[in-house]
Formats: sequence, structure tokens, C-alpha cells
Amino acid sequence: MEHLQQVPFSQVDITGGFWRQKQTLNRDVTIFAVRDRFEDTGRFRAFKFDWTPDSDIPKPHFFWDSDIAKWMESAAYILAKTPDAALQQTVEQVIDDIEAHQDESGYFNIYHTVAEPENRFRIRDHHELYCLGHLIEAAVAYFEATGHDRLIRILDRYIDLVIRVFTVEHSAGFTTPGHEEIELALFKLYRLRRDKKYLDLAMFFLNERGQTDEYLTGWGNARYAQSHLPVRQQLTAEGHCVRACYLYCAMADAAKETNDPALFAACRSLFDDITQKKMYVTGGIGSSHHGEAFTIPYDLPNDTAYNETCASIALSMFADRMKEIDPQSKYADTVERELYNGALAGLSLDGKAFFYENPLEINLSDRHRHTSVNDSDRLPITQRLEVFGCSCCPPNVTRYLATVGGSIYSVTDDALYVHQFMENTASVDGMTVRMQTRYPQDGKVRLTIDGAKGKTVFVRIPGWCSDYTCSLPCRMQNGYAAFSADEDAFVLDVDFAMQPSFVAAHPAVRADAGKAALLYGPVVYCMEGVDNGENLFDLVIEPHGGAEVRFDETYGANVITLPAQRIEAADETALYAPCGAEKATPAKATFIPYYAYANRGESDMTVWFRCL
Amino acid sequence: MEHLQQVPFSQVDITGGFWRQKQTLNRDVTIFAVRDRFEDTGRFRAFKFDWTPDSDIPKPHFFWDSDIAKWMESAAYILAKTPDAALQQTVEQVIDDIEAHQDESGYFNIYHTVAEPENRFRIRDHHELYCLGHLIEAAVAYFEATGHDRLIRILDRYIDLVIRVFTVEHSAGFTTPGHEEIELALFKLYRLRRDKKYLDLAMFFLNERGQTDEYLTGWGNARYAQSHLPVRQQLTAEGHCVRACYLYCAMADAAKETNDPALFAACRSLFDDITQKKMYVTGGIGSSHHGEAFTIPYDLPNDTAYNETCASIALSMFADRMKEIDPQSKYADTVERELYNGALAGLSLDGKAFFYENPLEINLSDRHRHTSVNDSDRLPITQRLEVFGCSCCPPNVTRYLATVGGSIYSVTDDALYVHQFMENTASVDGMTVRMQTRYPQDGKVRLTIDGAKGKTVFVRIPGWCSDYTCSLPCRMQNGYAAFSADEDAFVLDVDFAMQPSFVAAHPAVRADAGKAALLYGPVVYCMEGVDNGENLFDLVIEPHGGAEVRFDETYGANVITLPAQRIEAADETALYAPCGAEKATPAKATFIPYYAYANRGESDMTVWFRCL
Repeated sequence: MEHLQQVPFSQVDITGGFWRQKQTLNRDVTIFAVRDRFEDTGRFRAFKFDWTPDSDIPKPHFFWDSDIAKWMESAAYILAKTPDAALQQTVEQVIDDIEAHQDESGYFNIYHTVAEPENRFRIRDHHELYCLGHLIEAAVAYFEATGHDRLIRILDRYIDLVIRVFTVEHSAGFTTPGHEEIELALFKLYRLRRDKKYLDLAMFFLNERGQTDEYLTGWGNARYAQSHLPVRQQLTAEGHCVRACYLYCAMADAAKETNDPALFAACRSLFDDITQKKMYVTGGIGSSHHGEAFTIPYDLPNDTAYNETCASIALSMFADRMKEIDPQSKYADTVERELYNGALAGLSLDGKAFFYENPLEINLSDRHRHTSVNDSDRLPITQRLEVFGCSCCPPNVTRYLATVGGSIYSVTDDALYVHQFMENTASVDGMTVRMQTRYPQDGKVRLTIDGAKGKTVFVRIPGWCSDYTCSLPCRMQNGYAAFSADEDAFVLDVDFAMQPSFVAAHPAVRADAGKAALLYGPVVYCMEGVDNGENLFDLVIEPHGGAEVRFDETYGANVITLPAQRIEAADETALYAPCGAEKATPAKATFIPYYAYANRGESDMTVWFRCL
Repeated sequence: MEHLQQVPFSQVDITGGFWRQKQTLNRDVTIFAVRDRFEDTGRFRAFKFDWTPDSDIPKPHFFWDSDIAKWMESAAYILAKTPDAALQQTVEQVIDDIEAHQDESGYFNIYHTVAEPENRFRIRDHHELYCLGHLIEAAVAYFEATGHDRLIRILDRYIDLVIRVFTVEHSAGFTTPGHEEIELALFKLYRLRRDKKYLDLAMFFLNERGQTDEYLTGWGNARYAQSHLPVRQQLTAEGHCVRACYLYCAMADAAKETNDPALFAACRSLFDDITQKKMYVTGGIGSSHHGEAFTIPYDLPNDTAYNETCASIALSMFADRMKEIDPQSKYADTVERELYNGALAGLSLDGKAFFYENPLEINLSDRHRHTSVNDSDRLPITQRLEVFGCSCCPPNVTRYLATVGGSIYSVTDDALYVHQFMENTASVDGMTVRMQTRYPQDGKVRLTIDGAKGKTVFVRIPGWCSDYTCSLPCRMQNGYAAFSADEDAFVLDVDFAMQPSFVAAHPAVRADAGKAALLYGPVVYCMEGVDNGENLFDLVIEPHGGAEVRFDETYGANVITLPAQRIEAADETALYAPCGAEKATPAKATFIPYYAYANRGESDMTVWFRCL
């Protein structure tokens, strides 16, 4: 079938509402907060290449290049919408440094120049190609924002070196990168420049992966880095989540560029495996910190959930690509799940602090269980931090927020697809589109479209929505309501009925057995101890009681209060008592959006709760 | 108040039923199985003191003396009922070895003679006094079984050394033992010999404990070894569970011997803290493997429950002592809870294999969660083993089983107390008592008592029982039904109504929120995957449906079948679906006694289940 073409964020202006608030925060606060912490920690300084074993500056890590690259990419996206000379100057300064320190061969990597030059391209897990990938993404973004192609030209020399070393000389210590990223970046560059060498290199890395028994040097097995099978035979999501989803993005890119049915089939299978068996209701993926990895189907413990923010972003990226080659609503549903939940939870409400891990349950007392030994269980942190030792997530969040407008629309020759609902205006393939909505506060969406006559407008009916109205006649196709545009200019009102809705997990998800989660539209909710008292599991929610839904400016979304029963022991001294002896007293349970948890100090929290 | 005097197991013959079967298995199988494994592993051989760094025999561990001592104690208890020349010869051989290798000073410890003599009494956590304690218990048991006091005489010299080193010269590297045990052993010896030096040494160790900041050498803090406070100020159970409960036993012994109200108050507080806040429904204690320790109130996770078998036995020992100084039924209730659950689960049905840890939930799939890294979560083993590196539990189980008859009766000058219900005949303080019962198959108990005229017979009404009949008039006192014996010979029938009963945990026990456990009389039940399919949490039990109760010879108890609903996804591909969309199909759930789990191969298992 005909593939869809994404309408890039640059053609879409988020003009108000929920995402305008987030993008303003990102532009005014987050991009600078990340910059400041990266300056504090020596990441910018590292580009001066002046670390020596005797120096008193921090030793660069082999992935620091990528941290700054992602920050530059974010800055470029922000610059594309809002010129800022100082911000641009910071980017230019980094490019100056890169240019100044690029090796004669074209090679560029801080760590493997100042600290371990003898191991260039020797250690599969040392992220050199991952760093190059992020630099390529930054270069493409910066060119598209400013028209300046200096970084592309610098990296082009590096890419030529990589082509020679990996595909001609085969002189590297490994065949494919330990951490995928360069593949999807090469597709971006290929789409910009249409130079087939980029496509060929991307396809080389894809096609070689899993052909040999290429293990990592460390403790992960081949599955950890998706090297256990040739990519077209990878039908289940395995290993390190971020690596996996970056690979799957590239596989989707390749499927689209090359019309490869085996790749496309693998992508569909991988997507279904993740979203039908390995994804938290928040969109979080990677249920274990061991390997930051996918585990087995339905293994979704809540308090130890790893759910790296980058993994949510990566799944969103994969889903966003899938919708272009297979316009079924489940893909954009997953993007939406990440937008309002898994990915967004990574950022504090003040825009300055981040979670790397995103559990669905916090029980503070568990952190102090061990009173007699200097030992503890490993659990996620409970408050966001401004920077991490491995600080991949913060710049990923800012580039993600800057480009959410790119997830809204796609086009084909004769159709306009509307995937997401954000207040915006867009210039799309000869059409102008205006979308007015308070989504996710409520589900009313007005589309004012000009220039679509003869085309079909497809509007996604969200997976969470079972009840909606459309102001024009429509037919359903793959989860989209299809409207034939008979007039050149028309207005389409769609109203997705939003109300507190209770979901259960598949019965095989042991961690959620007998529990429910609350959604309101696309937003997953949670209870926090700060609102609901010390023990969130002595509250039993009454789903059919009267809910109070109140918009809260702090969250940019609704706070929901539900009637509940608080279970109390009939006899405080009885550790075990006959069922039914307990007292149930009427109570109120307050739910806030999951993405907003942990913004009011340390607190218990749960997404899954007991329900009558 | 007047203290009760235990009627020792030697005066009680278990003549049939559940415990006769267990004792026969213990006598015919378990004692020899433990002996054989201790021979295989070099524990008996170690008493030859011929290990050297160059030898090819296993290096003794510093607690091996105690393993054999507990085995000898068990053998003595068995010999007390059933003479067995070969068994006795094995004990005598060990005593020969001990005599041959006792140091001139009186000191005896294998490890600290052959491997690390320079550290005698230097390292608090090296269990020398713990080993001596177990040897003392063995010596007392063997003397009481056979009249042979040779081991007592040997150890008396060692005890004199300990008295001199610890209480006169203060020349040891520590003041009180890192692992308690010698204290309660000294009380046993004191009661046998009435030599005040034993009492004084026991009281010295009790009174010195927690007076100084005496840490262990390792990773535990003072609380780990109950050294955080003077014993009379220890009001909550802390640290390593077995150490703790052995200490509490000695505190109860001391309270009884010295009529010390502060010690008694501490014991009562410790007992309540354990049984009201830190004990699993099975009687298991010590919810974490970190330190094999008590954690915080209501922290009772099921799948990671450590629940060392020795800790259950130790709590039973503590409770058994408490009932003598405070005859409230809650103490014998706890003994009963251990008898039929926590302690008994440590032994396989064939009598040959043991659990060290006793979780309340097994999910086999959790053991294979990590598919891409060579890492895993720590979880208890799922099948009993015949011996462990640290094999304290097996000989503890066999000594415990051999002496269960000692938990049935106590006397005062004018009363007979009946605490436990086992088919037996006893000769008690001028009375003869015959108890006929099929307990725990049903709750009918017939007592035929001769010689009790003028006394009061107190029969415990079990805490699990809310419905019972007595054939004679009675009054209730502290959980015991009190009968005045007007005749010299009489028959008393008590019938404790047994039926499947469902209990809930205190609402603060997060792990059990919304779940129920099944009891039948004193027996806690569990579901196993082998009976009920792969996912025990997609079964929702109907408590008010018709239960089928069927006696099963294999278990010596009932198997219970309950109606249930099996929850199935309406759409297998939907990881999350609206509450209520799931299908519920009628099913049967089969429950077996918890103590009998893991006897039919590896299987999922749960004590706590979903319930309508």
C-alpha cells in the first residue's frame, strides 16, 4: 500500500493548550537546565579535548558526545521555531570544537581520542557509532533549522571512514554497533541528501546484525544487543529496550525506504509483541533494571519497573514510524500513550529535573525495610534529578517535547491523516489546517480545513474511546474515521467522550491481578500518599460512585476524586482475622496524572489500585 | 502468678494419627538421612580433627560442631523412646572424638583448633559459644535418654573455661556471643543439675548483651545480633530471626527462673511484636534474606519471604516457654501455627529433604525473567534439598519432630493444661491422660483422665476456632476452657468445628491486600500450579460456594476443593482492557496443606489468593 508521509514538526505550530505549555517550558527552562548541568558536569568542556590523566577536569565518558549531540539536536528544533542567537552560538561553539578536534582520518570521539585511542572501533559496547548517530541527528536538525551544513560536512568525512573501516576493510573489532542509533540517523541523512551511501551503510548495519555470534564484551548475551538473530527473523522484542527500539525504528525506516516485506513483517511482529505483552499501561517498557531490558511476556512488576524514559521515547519513535507504513490506529495510540504518560513522566513539572526510571508504584517504607544490615533491595529513585551519571534521558526529553507537533499529521496524495490532538495550525501539502481543542482536559476537537477538496480526512479514534460523535458523516477504517472532503473549506467537530475509565490488565499480568488503573482520555492516573495517606492499598475504589473531575492548572489536566472505602482492622492487634471482619469506612481517593507524580516531595504512589 | 511446668515429651507417648506418622518418619528416615548427608559432607569426619590445609578432606566450618550436636540431640530424643544400639553407637563415637580432641584448657571447637586456633574467642560472629550451646543441649538430651553423663562432664570443663575467660578474666575479643544459643542451653543444664554457675553464666550473657556498642565484625549492625539495647529494653523483635528467638527463649527461661518482671515484660512485648506485626500466616518469620532478619512491621512479601525453618522452630520454642509463665492461649496458638505450617514445611513428605527458606508464593517464571543478561533476582529455591552448606535446619527439624509431645501438657499443683491436640497417652503428675483425636483431619478430641479429682483441667480453645462444643460444663479463662474435675476418672469430649475458613491480613500488610488465605483448623493451605494450572492469580475463589473436603493419606490431612472463577481475557491481544470486559469461567481450585507444597516437582504455589 501507499505509505504515509509525516508532516514534520516544522510545518506545525502548536498554538495553545497542553502542549503549548509544555513546549514553552521546554524552550524557556528545560533546554537551559540541561545545558547548565552538562556544563557543570564537564560534558561541554570535554569537547575541548584537554582531559589528561593528570588534569583535574572530569574524565569524559565514551557516551558524552551523544549527550551533547542530543542537546544540540533539541536546541536546533527549538531554534527552528524561535530564533535565539545565544542558543545558536552555543551550538556553533560545539561545532567549532568538533571541527577543531576531528581526526585527520575523519574519526571523532572524545573518549577514544583523549583516554583510550588504542581501542578505536575495538570494543563493541563503547558507543562510538551510537555517538556518531546522535551527531548525525543533530547535524540534520541543525541544517533544517538554520540552513547551516557545516556539521553535516564534518560528519560526512567520519561516515566515509566508517564505510571504509566497516564495509570495505572490515578492520574494526566488531561488525555492528553494540548500541543501535546510527542506523536510524543514517536514514534521516539519506532522506535529506538522497546519497545512497548513507542508505547502504544503514542497510549494511541492519543486514549484518545477528548474522554472526557477535556478543558484547560484558555481561549481556547476544539478545541484549539484538544480535541473536538476523533482523528479519527478530519477531519478539528482546534485550536492552532503548537499543531495541532504536533498531526497530531503523528497521521501519528500511522497510519504508526499500519496501522490504520481511522487514515490515518483523516490525509488525515486534510492535505487537511489545504492546500486547511487554508494555506497562503508562507505555513504560523494560520491566527490569538488569540490562535495562525487556523480560518475558506479561512480566510487569510495578514497584521495580525500570521503564527508562529513553525507552518510552524510543517506542514512541518506533510507533510513529509504523503509522506511516501501516496506518492502523494502534500505532498512533501508542504514540499518544507515551506522549501523555511514559515519556512525559520523565520530566518534573518545573521543567528542570528528570526520571531515568519510571516505576508504577512507590512504597517508601520498602526503602527502610532492612533495619539490621547495611544492605537493601534495589529500587528506583523517588525524586527526579537534574542530571545523572548516565544522562541520556534529559536531552532526549527536550528533543521529544520540541517535536511533538510532528506526530499530528501525515499525508498521502489523496488523504490527510490526523493522528494526535493538540491545539495547532499547520500548513500541509497545499492545505491549511487549524485544530482547536482542550485535549486532554476534554475530548472536543474542531478541525478547520482548507484546501482538502477531493481528499479523505482520516481522524484517529483513540483506543481508549468507545463513545464519540462526529459532525460529518464518516466511515471507519483501521481505527480512523474517514471523512470525504466534498468542499474546499469545511469544519469538522469530533467529540471523544471523556470520563473516568477503569482498565484491567491481561489476566496473565500477575502484578496487576485484581487491580484496576484509572484513565481519563489518554491520561493514566495515579494516587499519591501526599493526597491519600500512608497506605494506598487499604483504599478500595468505588468505580461506580460519583467522580469529581476538576481541571488543575498545575498539571494542565484534570484531577479526579473518587469515592472509596478505607479498610481498617477490626482489631489492631490481629495480624490475621476472618475475611469480612475488617471495617470499611467511606473515604475519598484523589488521583493525579501519572506524569505529574513525585512533584510534591517523596511520597507513596500507585497506578494500580484495589477496586470494588 | 504460679508458673506452669511443662510435661516433657518423655512422659508423653504419641500413639497414633498425624504426629505418630511424622515421628515414625523422623525415627525411621529423617534422622538417618541427615546423618548420611552429614557423613557425605565431612561433618562427622571433622570430629577426627585431621583436617590440614594440605589434606583433601573438606575444611570444617566454624558451625559444623553445632550441626552434629543438633543431630546428636535429635538422636537422643529418639533413643529416649526407641532404643537403637547402632544409633546410640554413632552418638558415643562422636563423644569419643570430642573427648579425644578436647583441649587441655577445656576448649572444644573443631574449626578453631584445626584451622584458626589463633582466633579462639576473638571473633564474635564465629559461633564458638553457639556450638557449645548446642553441645550442651545434646549432652542434656543424651543424659536424659540414657543416663550417660560423659558429654556433660566433658562440657563442664569447657563451661568452666568460658566462665573464667568471659566473666573473670574478660580476655575474649567480645563480651556476648554473636549468635545466641548458649544462654538457653545453660538454663537446660541448670534445670538438670541445679548448679548455680550455669545460671550465673547464662544471666551474665543476658545481662551484658547490649550494654556496650558491641558490633559484629561483618556487615550487620548491633541490631542484627540483638546488641542494640540491654535485653530488658528490647521491646521489638530485631535482627537475625534465629538469633533473636533463641535469645528470647533464654529471656523467658530467665524470667521464669528469676521471677524478673522486667524480663517478663520484655518477653511479652517481643512476642506481641512478632505475632502482631512480623509473622506470616504460616508462622514464618524473617521476611528478608538480607540478614535472615526481621524487617519492619507489616512488611511481609510472599515470594521473597525468607522464613528460615530454624526461625519457625525458634519461635515455637519461645512461644512454648511463654505459655509456661503466662498461660494465655495465644502462645500455644503460635506453637500450633508452627507445628502445622511454618516449621513442618521445612521437611519433605518423604522425610529426606529440607527447605531452609519457606516462601508463601512461588512463580516459576520469575526465575527466567532475564533473558538477555547473565543476572537474576534472588529468590528462594523451589525444591527441598537433602543438605545445605549452612545445614542448621535439617537437624533442627528432626529434634523438633521428636519432641512435639512436650508441647501438649503443662501442670501446676492444682491444674492440668492441655495445649495441643495429638493422639497420645501421658503420665502426668500422678494422673494418666489419654487423648484420642484425628486432629487436624477433624476437631474432635476425647480426653480420658484418671487421677485429676480436685484439679482444674484447662483445654486451649484454638484461636482459629469460633465454634465448639464441650461435653462438660466449663468456664473460659485466657483462651482456655476450664473444667473442674469432680470425679477421679472422667471423659471429656471437645469438638472444635473445622471448616474451610478464609482469613485476611491486617490492612497494613500490603503484600496481601485484597487477598485471602485458606485455613482448615490450624492448617494453612496453598494452591499449587500442578493442580491449578500455570497462573494462580487468574483464579478467583468463591468462598461461599460448596467446598469439598477430602482426607488424603499422602498428606495426613485434608485436601480442599473450592469453586472458583478463572479470569480470561476477552481479547488475547489486549494487554489492557476495560474492567468488566474479561471472561470468567467456572473452575475448581484445589488446595493442599502448605506444609506439603513442593513435593510433586517444581510448581507455582501461593498461600494468598484472590477471592470474591
